Amino acid sequence: MKSCIATLTRFVVLVFVVLAVVPAVEAADRDKLLSEPGVYGTFASYSLDENWGKQDQAVRIAQLTVLKGVVEQHREKLAIDVYLLRGLSDHADLLFRVHAIELRETQQFLLDLQGSLFGKHLTGSTIFSGLTKKPNYVPGMPDNIKAELKVSSDPGPKPYVIVIPIRKDADWWSLSQEQRGAMMQEHTEASLPYSKTVKRKLYHSTGLDDLDFITYFETSRLEDFQSLILALEKVKEFRHNRRFGHPTLLGTVKSLDEIIEVLAQ
Amino acid sequence: MKSCIATLTRFVVLVFVVLAVVPAVEAADRDKLLSEPGVYGTFASYSLDENWGKQDQAVRIAQLTVLKGVVEQHREKLAIDVYLLRGLSDHADLLFRVHAIELRETQQFLLDLQGSLFGKHLTGSTIFSGLTKKPNYVPGMPDNIKAELKVSSDPGPKPYVIVIPIRKDADWWSLSQEQRGAMMQEHTEASLPYSKTVKRKLYHSTGLDDLDFITYFETSRLEDFQSLILALEKVKEFRHNRRFGHPTLLGTVKSLDEIIEVLAQ
Amino acid sequence: MKSCIATLTRFVVLVFVVLAVVPAVEAADRDKLLSEPGVYGTFASYSLDENWGKQDQAVRIAQLTVLKGVVEQHREKLAIDVYLLRGLSDHADLLFRVHAIELRETQQFLLDLQGSLFGKHLTGSTIFSGLTKKPNYVPGMPDNIKAELKVSSDPGPKPYVIVIPIRKDADWWSLSQEQRGAMMQEHTEASLPYSKTVKRKLYHSTGLDDLDFITYFETSRLEDFQSLILALEKVKEFRHNRRFGHPTLLGTVKSLDEIIEVLAQ
Amino acid sequence: MKSCIATLTRFVVLVFVVLAVVPAVEAADRDKLLSEPGVYGTFASYSLDENWGKQDQAVRIAQLTVLKGVVEQHREKLAIDVYLLRGLSDHADLLFRVHAIELRETQQFLLDLQGSLFGKHLTGSTIFSGLTKKPNYVPGMPDNIKAELKVSSDPGPKPYVIVIPIRKDADWWSLSQEQRGAMMQEHTEASLPYSKTVKRKLYHSTGLDDLDFITYFETSRLEDFQSLILALEKVKEFRHNRRFGHPTLLGTVKSLDEIIEVLAQ
Amino acid sequence: MKSCIATLTRFVVLVFVVLAVVPAVEAADRDKLLSEPGVYGTFASYSLDENWGKQDQAVRIAQLTVLKGVVEQHREKLAIDVYLLRGLSDHADLLFRVHAIELRETQQFLLDLQGSLFGKHLTGSTIFSGLTKKPNYVPGMPDNIKAELKVSSDPGPKPYVIVIPIRKDADWWSLSQEQRGAMMQEHTEASLPYSKTVKRKLYHSTGLDDLDFITYFETSRLEDFQSLILALEKVKEFRHNRRFGHPTLLGTVKSLDEIIEVLAQ
Repeated sequence: MKSCIATLTRFVVLVFVVLAVVPAVEAADRDKLLSEPGVYGTFASYSLDENWGKQDQAVRIAQLTVLKGVVEQHREKLAIDVYLLRGLSDHADLLFRVHAIELRETQQFLLDLQGSLFGKHLTGSTIFSGLTKKPNYVPGMPDNIKAELKVSSDPGPKPYVIVIPIRKDADWWSLSQEQRGAMMQEHTEASLPYSKTVKRKLYHSTGLDDLDFITYFETSRLEDFQSLILALEKVKEFRHNRRFGHPTLLGTVKSLDEIIEVLAQ
Repeated sequence: MKSCIATLTRFVVLVFVVLAVVPAVEAADRDKLLSEPGVYGTFASYSLDENWGKQDQAVRIAQLTVLKGVVEQHREKLAIDVYLLRGLSDHADLLFRVHAIELRETQQFLLDLQGSLFGKHLTGSTIFSGLTKKPNYVPGMPDNIKAELKVSSDPGPKPYVIVIPIRKDADWWSLSQEQRGAMMQEHTEASLPYSKTVKRKLYHSTGLDDLDFITYFETSRLEDFQSLILALEKVKEFRHNRRFGHPTLLGTVKSLDEIIEVLAQ
Repeated sequence: MKSCIATLTRFVVLVFVVLAVVPAVEAADRDKLLSEPGVYGTFASYSLDENWGKQDQAVRIAQLTVLKGVVEQHREKLAIDVYLLRGLSDHADLLFRVHAIELRETQQFLLDLQGSLFGKHLTGSTIFSGLTKKPNYVPGMPDNIKAELKVSSDPGPKPYVIVIPIRKDADWWSLSQEQRGAMMQEHTEASLPYSKTVKRKLYHSTGLDDLDFITYFETSRLEDFQSLILALEKVKEFRHNRRFGHPTLLGTVKSLDEIIEVLAQ
Repeated sequence: MKSCIATLTRFVVLVFVVLAVVPAVEAADRDKLLSEPGVYGTFASYSLDENWGKQDQAVRIAQLTVLKGVVEQHREKLAIDVYLLRGLSDHADLLFRVHAIELRETQQFLLDLQGSLFGKHLTGSTIFSGLTKKPNYVPGMPDNIKAELKVSSDPGPKPYVIVIPIRKDADWWSLSQEQRGAMMQEHTEASLPYSKTVKRKLYHSTGLDDLDFITYFETSRLEDFQSLILALEKVKEFRHNRRFGHPTLLGTVKSLDEIIEVLAQ
Repeated sequence: MKSCIATLTRFVVLVFVVLAVVPAVEAADRDKLLSEPGVYGTFASYSLDENWGKQDQAVRIAQLTVLKGVVEQHREKLAIDVYLLRGLSDHADLLFRVHAIELRETQQFLLDLQGSLFGKHLTGSTIFSGLTKKPNYVPGMPDNIKAELKVSSDPGPKPYVIVIPIRKDADWWSLSQEQRGAMMQEHTEASLPYSKTVKRKLYHSTGLDDLDFITYFETSRLEDFQSLILALEKVKEFRHNRRFGHPTLLGTVKSLDEIIEVLAQ
């Protein structure tokens, strides 16, 4: 019985949403935004207010259609990903990751999102941004490590997402380039055994918020992810983290349609 | 007079609840989930909002029936325990401990819980998760200690529950395996005198939240539990705790029906 | 005129309250609970919500009568003291100190309190508990100090109450029993000049919350109390306090009837 | 036009207020309370809730009349000063400084204030108290410094008020009386150049809240005040401040009638 | 279609606003306030409450007209700048930077702002103030550096604004003037490569709030700004920052009319 209603809801949601997005928009060059240096990545997480769940399902579906419309409208310039944190993280319910060439474009998207009928139910936002950069190989980095780093992680779904913000201590920045490089090589070597099952991405956020780095992880094997973090905690570089997490965001990777389905129920 | 009403309420609650759960569900292999390594344990605590107590008892009972239904529905895949924190901990009113093979299953349960009619009254959630692992005996650990560790705690009810999250400092992780092992042996020896009256369980949470360990205790003798913690504070390993508690959760072990009875009144 | 109304209110309150508590209950052995070791002391502080003062006085009096009833009902097993913090502490409005042989009894009282018509107006609770223990005299403690310690404080009303929670640092616990003993003797000697005007009581709370000790003071001479704390800050043991206060609770000792009168106005 | 309304409002407010305070009360010996040792000074700051500004002006004026009445009624025993923080400090809107021989009298005033029709709009209070003491001249303090210290600050209005709470570190209290004295002499000398333009007052608060000192400043020249604080930050004693500010309260000195006028508009 | 409505809205807003500000006011000597020493700069940030967006657009436009009026009215004495933080900073939605000769004038503006129909929707304000001072060239500062410092940044729009509050540690203030000067010279040299693309301004806030400095940046090239901060983190002086950011405010520079347009939609 319950699953019948779920199926019906799913159908209704999809119909509404499809109808709402008739004028197809040209998508940003998502691949480029997600792989090139010089791109701003913004992580914006929100909780749903207490009124969200008290509304009729029809009202919620209408508002989710607006959400879909706002996202589609900005896909021309931005790469937008959504994640479900509720149930795994007490920090927020939803996480948006937005990649843009100009942070102003991201601001416009989040303004439109927060100003929409759906956005009126979003509270307690947390926003931090960082910049992607070319990997800065240490001069003496052995070629085999460089080669391994270029191997991408195994294909296939990686349902779990983890975001860990990092702030280094003042000692870190006062080290010489060589000293930092040597520590980063040790860090990199420690992470190699997990490069196939844990996908990583790094954002430089110094000055843009109260962080130095945003580290982003996707995996289907949380145990491997935990082993990776334990390995990283054992290298010298880890001692220079003044803040590691706080918050650590743990959630699941979802398509926008999946998020809409979850929130419609 | 008051106790008459209490008895009546109890009866009404039970009738409602029994009626609500006619289709019996197959329970997960609870024993396995609670004893084996490689299982994810999630601790989710919630407070009841100010509107909860203002509702008519009939409404509250209906919502508690929904709570029971949600829990029963997920018992197929999860081991779910409930605890009453209200009155002993200012952090939350209720604590759920959920064991699962996949964290996604736990997320689905908590989504259903928070999205239910009962869940609309839950606020201020705190969620942290950890992974059970095989005990990692130190190479030189004497056999008699290993033997004592395998002895389970005395049977019989253990009404009190305490959950203490722990984060180690960076120095801890930079020690060699042997150094950490030696300290853990000292830690283990200090805890042995309390193994019969205080039941313990350990979860590894590095990377999954802002902790390294979640320690879980059950006891009928809080004085023994306090002596255990004092003993553990005196060993060297304790000096490597950057965070110990914050929050310390103290409550009582309850069955779901007992929780429902308390909340129905 | 104002004092006439005050007198009238007082009368009305008393009449209501007396009527409400016809079936006298047998009081717990209060003296024993307050003097013996092995007793759990719980400090629960609450603020009144913004709706409290907006209610008609008659409604408030009815709810205060419920408060009185809940307290009386639990006096059989518990020693319950009340304090007025409002106006002297920004942390809370009311403080309950509850002594019990079993913490479960205290939990049941606070559940009944928070679940009562009066309790619906209580918000932002802070709860911490500790255990009384036999004074642990240092082996070499001179007899004259022991004798002085046994002298009780001067009789007579001590209108002010101060509660200071304490957490020791890790170094403290790693000291030898003798080293801690020597420091505690210095601490004790520093406090002797104030033993007559400042009444003290100590609770051990390690493991039960994020504290190691709860120190409780009553005095009619706040200046003496301040001199006592200054004297204690100058001994070596003070350097091992990682947390001292936060919150420091300052209020006045009141009977339940006095509290009811204040809140009824 | 706007100023006409302002004048009219002023007139209306004054008429109401004058009518409301017909029975003149005998004022406490304000000069003594403000100058003698052994007096308790309490700093209570409040924000106005969101409903305050939504009320009709007539309602607000009526409530401000109640405020005036409550203050007048307690002036018999207390010296009460008011300050406007709104617009200069994000911590609160209003600050009351209350001097009393007995803290219970201050508690009664704040109870009456918070319980009044005006007080229902006060939220988020912060309260800390301290005791005035005789200046404790260092034995070797040169006579010329003592003389300079006795010179009061220039007369004339000092529109700005700053309150900075201070907590010393454990090292401070473990220094010998002489060591602390020498540092305080250096501190005092550094402050002398500003004694004419910046009026200072010191309260000892150890044990009464989570502070050791409350420092109070009045000035018409904020630049001089800033130079004073910079000078004090350069002496050794400053290194023993574990907390300095948090909050720093910055506002303007107002008469009660001026506050009433601001809040009536 | 959407852009038509946007244009229409823009028109309506402008008409309303122009009508509302008929009596033109004489503007303060903005250039002087923004360039001279001895001026107080106040940074006041606010969030819009949840009711803001629920109002009809006509109501919002009326309230924004009030906002414009309040700002215009105070432009006689103050230099007022506005920034949009929403979507880039989780700290607040709007930031006002106010320059004044007397802080009382700024207080009056913020009182009028918060007391206006628009201001009733402002919550969670954060306010900090600082004083501009003459650049304090280190005695040995080479002339070429002084010359470079006097070159202003490239003209043209600088859409991004960043505000970073700073508190130095106690060690910093105990250094000699020469030691601090040498470190500041190193700091200055590190920042020179970015002086053309990143505009900077410094406020001294010791004693006025819980900060020592407020650093203000405008740029069109966030990457350059990030490189500047990274360069500054590598000099010795950075090790004396006890607080750097918390919050870091990131937003976009807007005219008041642009802000009004964004908020009207």
